[in-house]
This record gives sequence, C-alpha cells and structure tokens, in this order.
Amino acid sequence: MAPESTSDVDMKAEILAAAAELFQRDGYSRTKVAAIARAVGITPPTLYWHFESKEDILFEFLRTSLQEFLNRIEAAIAGLTDPVETLRAFAVAHTRAQLSQLEQAQTFLSMTYSRTQLASSLPKERYELIRELHRRHLDSARDILRKGAEQGVFDVPDLNATAFAILNICEYSALWFQPGGPLTVEQVAEMNGEFALRIAASPHEPRKE
Amino acid sequence: MAPESTSDVDMKAEILAAAAELFQRDGYSRTKVAAIARAVGITPPTLYWHFESKEDILFEFLRTSLQEFLNRIEAAIAGLTDPVETLRAFAVAHTRAQLSQLEQAQTFLSMTYSRTQLASSLPKERYELIRELHRRHLDSARDILRKGAEQGVFDVPDLNATAFAILNICEYSALWFQPGGPLTVEQVAEMNGEFALRIAASPHEPRKE
Repeated sequence: MAPESTSDVDMKAEILAAAAELFQRDGYSRTKVAAIARAVGITPPTLYWHFESKEDILFEFLRTSLQEFLNRIEAAIAGLTDPVETLRAFAVAHTRAQLSQLEQAQTFLSMTYSRTQLASSLPKERYELIRELHRRHLDSARDILRKGAEQGVFDVPDLNATAFAILNICEYSALWFQPGGPLTVEQVAEMNGEFALRIAASPHEPRKE
Repeated sequence: MAPESTSDVDMKAEILAAAAELFQRDGYSRTKVAAIARAVGITPPTLYWHFESKEDILFEFLRTSLQEFLNRIEAAIAGLTDPVETLRAFAVAHTRAQLSQLEQAQTFLSMTYSRTQLASSLPKERYELIRELHRRHLDSARDILRKGAEQGVFDVPDLNATAFAILNICEYSALWFQPGGPLTVEQVAEMNGEFALRIAASPHEPRKE
C-alpha cells in the first residue's frame, strides 16, 4: 500500500471525530457505519476504504486519543529530574489535557467515562492494548512518586493509592470544571499541581513530626 | 392507602435492586418492565402494584441509594466540631461507603458512572431532585473546608476545586480498588482521610512558609 496522503490522514481524522461523537451519543452498538459516513458526508464504501470495520474505527479513536494524551504528558515532564518539579508538571499537564479537551468538545460531561465504557466493546486483545496505554500513565505517576520517596522528598503511604489519588483529581476535574466559569483551565491545572504535591507531602508541604 | 407492610418494603427493595442491575447492564431505555419483573420472579401487574412506571423505579433507586449514602456520611461526622477531625471522618466515610458497596456488588466498575448516566434519563424535575442530593454532599465538604480555613487550620486555594479534589479521590477509589486485593477497604479509607487533610494542608501537614 502506498503511504497515506495528507488528505487521507485528514479524512481518517474526520471519520474518527464523527464516529466518536456518535458512539458517545448513541452507544457503540447502536451506531451504524452508514450513520458515521453520513455524518462525514461520504458514502459507506468510501468509509470502508479508510477503515475495515466499525471496530477498527473505535480502536483507532481510543488508541490515537490516548496516545496523544500520553504524548502531551511526556512532553511536559521531559528533561525534568527533580521529583517535586516533575510531579507538579505531570499533574498540571494531565489536568490541562483533560480540561482543554472539554473546552473544545463540550458535548460530554466526561470523555473518560465514555471511553472506558467504549473500550469494553473491543475484543479482548485490543481492549488489552488500550489498557496498556492507560497503564503507562499510571506507571509514570508511580515512577515519579517512587523516586521522590527514595530521595526522601515525598511521603507515600502506598504507591498505588497515592498515584490514583493524584490521577483522579486531575482526571475528574473534567466533571466539575465549567468552561467560561469562575476558574480558568490554567488555574485549575495549577491548583491540581499544588494538590499533587500536598498529597505526596512534598518538601513544600512537609509533615509535622 | 394503608401503610406499607414489611413484605411490601422488602419487595420494593428487591425490585429496585433487580432494576438497578438491569439498568446498568443493558441501559435504562433498553430495559423492559417485564424483564425487571422476571428478574424478581413476579408478574408485571404485581410490579405495577409497587411502582407506577419504569421511571418511578429509576427515580426511587437513585433517590434511596443517594439518601442512604448521605445518611452514612452524616452519621460519621455527627457531633464532630474540629474541622480537621471532621474532614478526615468525612473522607473516610465517603471512601468506605463507595468501597463497601463495591465489595457487595461487584458487577460494575463504577456505580457512580452508571448512576450519573442513569439520572440523565429522568425528566428535568426529578433529575434536579437527584442533583440536589449530590449538591448536599458537596455543600457538606465545602462547609468543612470553609470552617477550617476560617479557623486558620486549612489552606484552601479555592473552595470548589479543593472540595472536588477530595470528593474525587474518595469517589473514584472505586475505580482502582480491588476487593480481596493487597489493600483493605479500611486501609484505603484511612489513606484517603489522610490525603484529604494533606490537600487542605491541615495542621498535621502545615505548609513551609
């Protein structure tokens, strides 16, 4: 197969965006390929030229959006070595990614909810691949916490419980944040960065002995 | 109408439990009243003797389970006056309620997700009543934080952001907690109590000036 042209890539992205909206609005099983094609303004045969099946569309949507999320976080902490700085940047970037997404596409209360549910429509092998991407993010949080604990700058009662506490604060900011409301994305992101350090009881907020 | 007998109350509870499982498994709109009746082992007319409509069942399920949740939290903080003690008890009770529920009914990754989605199937007025119950929990968290900030024992950068950070840690513990796994419900609840105080930068974890 010849390398994809720019317009092919654009068309794929358009199909994914339209499909994502329909999957999340109507549910995966109730969304027909014909409806996705119609939403993009193409015929089903044209759609099938880009994706072999509805499942392929779902998998690509989940995989690419998660990969993009991971890339943003990795870019934000690249080059940082101090665990305190890294943890703050990690939480800020996670929150920023969640909330800016919300500002772009206000259709859903939470993309995350829908995505977790959508992933469960995938066959086992592909579901595991998506879970693996999620796990990479969790591993990254645990690594930062472990390093900080080893260096004595964090107090981490349990690696998983602490990592998830921080991830959940960032992830579910999208549930209460109101675009155009009293707080900006940046303000919430900065606060979550601060909360992450407080949770890890970083040197900025040492525990009283 | 005569007061309900114990067996009526039991039957109602059974219907609600069966309906909740079906709603969450198949979605509200796809669940037929006949299927709920079948799951309980009664006829549709018997079911209609207890509930006038499928919507009534959904509303009652959401209302009673939320009310029960609120009662547990209120009981846990009743009589406490110190904001530090109260915040810890609040977070511990919230986590305990979420996780013990998960231990009882392992069918779902998250009851909360499903409930939020289910509530959106209600007509506006009833939806608002459910939201009002949710808001009561949020108000309770904000009250504790406000009191602590006023007494100078908490450092709260923003009341909403801080309250939601704490609520989300407790609420979404259910997403990663594994019943029978390395941590017990009590251990996670205690850690979340500690994290809540760290987030509020309580006297136990004062900020470095």
